[in-house]
Amino acid sequence: MENIITSENAEKIYSEIKDLPIIDYHCHLSPKEIYENKVFGNIGEMWLAGDHYKWRLMRFYGVDEKYITGNAPMKEKFLKFAEVVSTAYGNPIQDWCELELDEVFGIKKRLCKENAEDIWNEANEKIEKDRLCPKKIFEMFGVEYVATTDDPCDSLEYHRLIKKEEKIKTKVVPTFRVDNLLVFGDNYTDYLKKLGDVSGIEINSLDSFENAVKTRMDFFILHGCKFSDVGIQGFPNVISDKKSAEEAFLKIINKKPLAAKEAEGLQGYLFVFLGEEYAKRNMIMQLHLGAKRNSNSKMLASIGKDSGFDCVGKPLDINSVTNVLDKMYSDGLLPAAVVYTLNPTMYYELITMCGAFPGAVIGVPWWFCDHKKGIFELFETFSALGHIGALFGMLTDSRSFLSYVRHGYFRMILAEYLGRYGSDKDVVKTAKNLSYFNAVDRIKK
Amino acid sequence: MENIITSENAEKIYSEIKDLPIIDYHCHLSPKEIYENKVFGNIGEMWLAGDHYKWRLMRFYGVDEKYITGNAPMKEKFLKFAEVVSTAYGNPIQDWCELELDEVFGIKKRLCKENAEDIWNEANEKIEKDRLCPKKIFEMFGVEYVATTDDPCDSLEYHRLIKKEEKIKTKVVPTFRVDNLLVFGDNYTDYLKKLGDVSGIEINSLDSFENAVKTRMDFFILHGCKFSDVGIQGFPNVISDKKSAEEAFLKIINKKPLAAKEAEGLQGYLFVFLGEEYAKRNMIMQLHLGAKRNSNSKMLASIGKDSGFDCVGKPLDINSVTNVLDKMYSDGLLPAAVVYTLNPTMYYELITMCGAFPGAVIGVPWWFCDHKKGIFELFETFSALGHIGALFGMLTDSRSFLSYVRHGYFRMILAEYLGRYGSDKDVVKTAKNLSYFNAVDRIKK
Amino acid sequence: MENIITSENAEKIYSEIKDLPIIDYHCHLSPKEIYENKVFGNIGEMWLAGDHYKWRLMRFYGVDEKYITGNAPMKEKFLKFAEVVSTAYGNPIQDWCELELDEVFGIKKRLCKENAEDIWNEANEKIEKDRLCPKKIFEMFGVEYVATTDDPCDSLEYHRLIKKEEKIKTKVVPTFRVDNLLVFGDNYTDYLKKLGDVSGIEINSLDSFENAVKTRMDFFILHGCKFSDVGIQGFPNVISDKKSAEEAFLKIINKKPLAAKEAEGLQGYLFVFLGEEYAKRNMIMQLHLGAKRNSNSKMLASIGKDSGFDCVGKPLDINSVTNVLDKMYSDGLLPAAVVYTLNPTMYYELITMCGAFPGAVIGVPWWFCDHKKGIFELFETFSALGHIGALFGMLTDSRSFLSYVRHGYFRMILAEYLGRYGSDKDVVKTAKNLSYFNAVDRIKK
Repeated sequence: MENIITSENAEKIYSEIKDLPIIDYHCHLSPKEIYENKVFGNIGEMWLAGDHYKWRLMRFYGVDEKYITGNAPMKEKFLKFAEVVSTAYGNPIQDWCELELDEVFGIKKRLCKENAEDIWNEANEKIEKDRLCPKKIFEMFGVEYVATTDDPCDSLEYHRLIKKEEKIKTKVVPTFRVDNLLVFGDNYTDYLKKLGDVSGIEINSLDSFENAVKTRMDFFILHGCKFSDVGIQGFPNVISDKKSAEEAFLKIINKKPLAAKEAEGLQGYLFVFLGEEYAKRNMIMQLHLGAKRNSNSKMLASIGKDSGFDCVGKPLDINSVTNVLDKMYSDGLLPAAVVYTLNPTMYYELITMCGAFPGAVIGVPWWFCDHKKGIFELFETFSALGHIGALFGMLTDSRSFLSYVRHGYFRMILAEYLGRYGSDKDVVKTAKNLSYFNAVDRIKK
Repeated sequence: MENIITSENAEKIYSEIKDLPIIDYHCHLSPKEIYENKVFGNIGEMWLAGDHYKWRLMRFYGVDEKYITGNAPMKEKFLKFAEVVSTAYGNPIQDWCELELDEVFGIKKRLCKENAEDIWNEANEKIEKDRLCPKKIFEMFGVEYVATTDDPCDSLEYHRLIKKEEKIKTKVVPTFRVDNLLVFGDNYTDYLKKLGDVSGIEINSLDSFENAVKTRMDFFILHGCKFSDVGIQGFPNVISDKKSAEEAFLKIINKKPLAAKEAEGLQGYLFVFLGEEYAKRNMIMQLHLGAKRNSNSKMLASIGKDSGFDCVGKPLDINSVTNVLDKMYSDGLLPAAVVYTLNPTMYYELITMCGAFPGAVIGVPWWFCDHKKGIFELFETFSALGHIGALFGMLTDSRSFLSYVRHGYFRMILAEYLGRYGSDKDVVKTAKNLSYFNAVDRIKK
Repeated sequence: MENIITSENAEKIYSEIKDLPIIDYHCHLSPKEIYENKVFGNIGEMWLAGDHYKWRLMRFYGVDEKYITGNAPMKEKFLKFAEVVSTAYGNPIQDWCELELDEVFGIKKRLCKENAEDIWNEANEKIEKDRLCPKKIFEMFGVEYVATTDDPCDSLEYHRLIKKEEKIKTKVVPTFRVDNLLVFGDNYTDYLKKLGDVSGIEINSLDSFENAVKTRMDFFILHGCKFSDVGIQGFPNVISDKKSAEEAFLKIINKKPLAAKEAEGLQGYLFVFLGEEYAKRNMIMQLHLGAKRNSNSKMLASIGKDSGFDCVGKPLDINSVTNVLDKMYSDGLLPAAVVYTLNPTMYYELITMCGAFPGAVIGVPWWFCDHKKGIFELFETFSALGHIGALFGMLTDSRSFLSYVRHGYFRMILAEYLGRYGSDKDVVKTAKNLSYFNAVDRIKK
């Protein structure tokens, strides 16, 4: 791994932040796996079973799908991956793997073709000997708070069990993820049926839909939810008034044809409705913008979604995002907002937009932007256009328990960045805020 | 402040350019204030009374509007601002404040919460003792030439008074800023009435409008005007022919409904008309592209425009800008042009476009782009795609008399950048040209 | 020239790759000139006769067109150019000229106004003394393979002659460049007539057109063609089915009016048709995206195309490009693809798109992006989002025989970049692959 920390200032800052606890306010960990807290199978499963970041990297290198999502034995997949990652210079996965081997398995080597078999054995022995499980990982990294990502219809059964049995100290709370409320696909009426069932409200109008959603929101809050989230493709350019939204909604539940503009207007209406309900409940609204889902339709059909075929989408029209925030603000009901983009060409537009709405802030680099250069780019751009001290802090957005090394990675980059400006108490305080305290404060608010 | 100059070459270059006079060929200083030449009130007023850059920064940090544009006493506003700016690492405002304290007030400290009260007193004493006023500032920084930004209807009364009374050596000239000619809002006919009055030409047709505009242009030139400017939102995709433009114009003056495409075509027509009239008069055309105005409608209603709610707009369609320049060039009437963008994602498109039209050049970084990284980005991109020696030079674009430190800031960055290529006489000459002589030459042309 | 190699690692890596042979799999060299292999006239002709990169640079500096494409004597043009390039700091042309003077002419000086006359004489003496010709240049740089860019109607006469007479060791093969098949301009039916003639197939239907195209493709392959290419403006958003495509095609050959959407759909259909035929023949598909041609219509009329008035075009809609690849992949007929963009704001979108389609990869920086900063940007971005080892390798894309220094330039930057990650055998192997072996392997596949 290329050295991240290169100055004395940075070293001093890093020493002050490296051991702070972790607030992971947005991730895709499974509450069921957290609750069950099983000892992990082997490093291959931990690394390769569900991590589409790694699948993608293997495909770029020309590895046959058999060794990626196919039926090759896990050890063979691991050996292939070792070969691929060993020369993936500049890809964050190389750095993360190195950090994970070091911090979780105590293996201070760069994985390569030649040592892959040894590392496979050494890591698996460690897993068995130390009985590595989610709880152990949380403790190892000082994870205080985890917000999972959950559908409004989710029963939150595992969140409740985790809390009830108190075996894990980490606070594990749900996030209200509303994609399914906003995309009017073929299964939308089935989804409404389910929503009606879990909320106990029959959905036959926009009002009843809104009531059902609010009921679920309150239910989530009851179980510690503080954040909402959305990550649909595109963004509505139109915001219908209630009457038009109602007409469109009725068409949907009556399975009548809906013009594209009507659907878009309804979506815009619902964005505003949801945001304002978050504001009333003091929830924080997360917007994940700029993804293009499932670019390869044949692979979608054969392997399914979240398999490494999502891409960076085209830049959104900033006016559409601004209009939605502006409507909420005009109504006096703009929630605190964290705006992430997968397309970094939008940074100037989004950061200055956030500056026009109190409580809105750009999110830390997400997914394809979450690498060393990408994090520096955000720091530099947000510093120049905004106020670096206002950043919310790091999150993993990960499906893997091992990803907590990314907080350390982020902190190294943060230390190196802030080290440019010295290492006095104000600099150190800023570093601490961005590592931990900003997230703590805002969750408490 | 992070060191900008880090090499011996850069030091040598900087020593050769730091004391060159300043040509500020685009700013928003008030000719009235220049003429009246009052001793400034206090540093709070100088810094915070009208500077929406600083207001924005305070909002990003979560400061209550009371301390920004509200009725808190100026000293309290200053203390709040001190706290905010002290940790605004990487924001150019932090650097500018440090330079202003040093160069104008002789205070060699970084403003922070702890020393804010002392600095408030020290700076205000200095203002009073030295009777700091616009004239003093101009002299302090060697400001030779200032082009203010003025509406075509402006009487230029203060420009005339400044010239007549000869108290200030700096040449202060108006810029022909045409936004109000191009945006057909609700008050457009009122504006035409005013234009008719000041030009002495009754506006009842496109021809009479054009004559009125030409009359005002000539009037501005009589008072030293060399530059035009425009900074409207968006850019017309259509250029109407004279006949269609005339029909559209008549609809406007007769208050008949106008289709969006008609308005756009008229705007395109007028862009070309104006450009060609500039060319005939050897004026330089400035285009400020890519701003999104007044993103927060509630704050617009309560505080008004130019209050820190403008943002970076979406990238323009390069074809629309190209078409306008192409039309002028085809007609043999393309003026010298300086093209600024607020959205740096347009640099590749705009710089290569400029390369296709003799006399067109990209403008130095503007507003949200005017920071250390942004200036390096422009230098590097324009060097690679164009010829660094062709840049017009720095301007402030500021509403504040203190902003002249930004010329020094620009020169430091320029020295550091050119230092990469040595410090021989050719390099130094390029640095001098970009600091001063290019602007001098082009204004004389 | 600013030092490119600054670390010991980079030095070590560079020493291992600098003498590898060159595979120039995409350029615009003239097969006729290669075959005729004449001794060059003078350095002015070599540098300035057809190089619109240099013309553009001179225009940016304000040089009169007389000294660019006008009738000034070549020596005067050279002297003007010397003056311009001497201060074009950060422009790759300055670096390339320095490398060309050094490596081809043995002149170790930076060209400037003062030494221009001497260099003119020294270089011309060298040309005459050493009888510098294409063959000599190829040998000097170890050029093993050159793929020229050729129209499907081309007789490939010179390619055949080059092969037959065996005077030049370099393998010179054609590229199937399909722009003329895809742009339905005024001369399209004339072009179809020509295509019918050379293929011996009368074109009166879409089927016969496709057969003619396939015939030419096979003919090209017979003469060593491995690559296709396209560089039209824009990209179709629609892919017609065969029936609609047929109707649109018949309208064209019958000179009936064609709606824009029909033309776009036909273009989309043909993109897919061509790609799938490449796949069947194991050809590699190159897409050159994002150019805006002939921005200055008056200069187009007076000097013609390829004269330095092309620009960077607006970012394409990534969905349109994705849809075309997705269709081919769904049909099981996606060829290996190299996707170049002239607009670097598209990198995130295009690189992640490539990751969704096995065998697709981003192309090395093209034209306006082919400079030091641009190459670093691609390395860093592709490393972070993809796998650096998957890059195809450098090409010149040039009209000039001297451009082979750009391979050395690329290798220096590559060495400096990879040196960040050490200089062990894996790093060196990656450097070698990107310099030479990746291209060799993929051409053989």
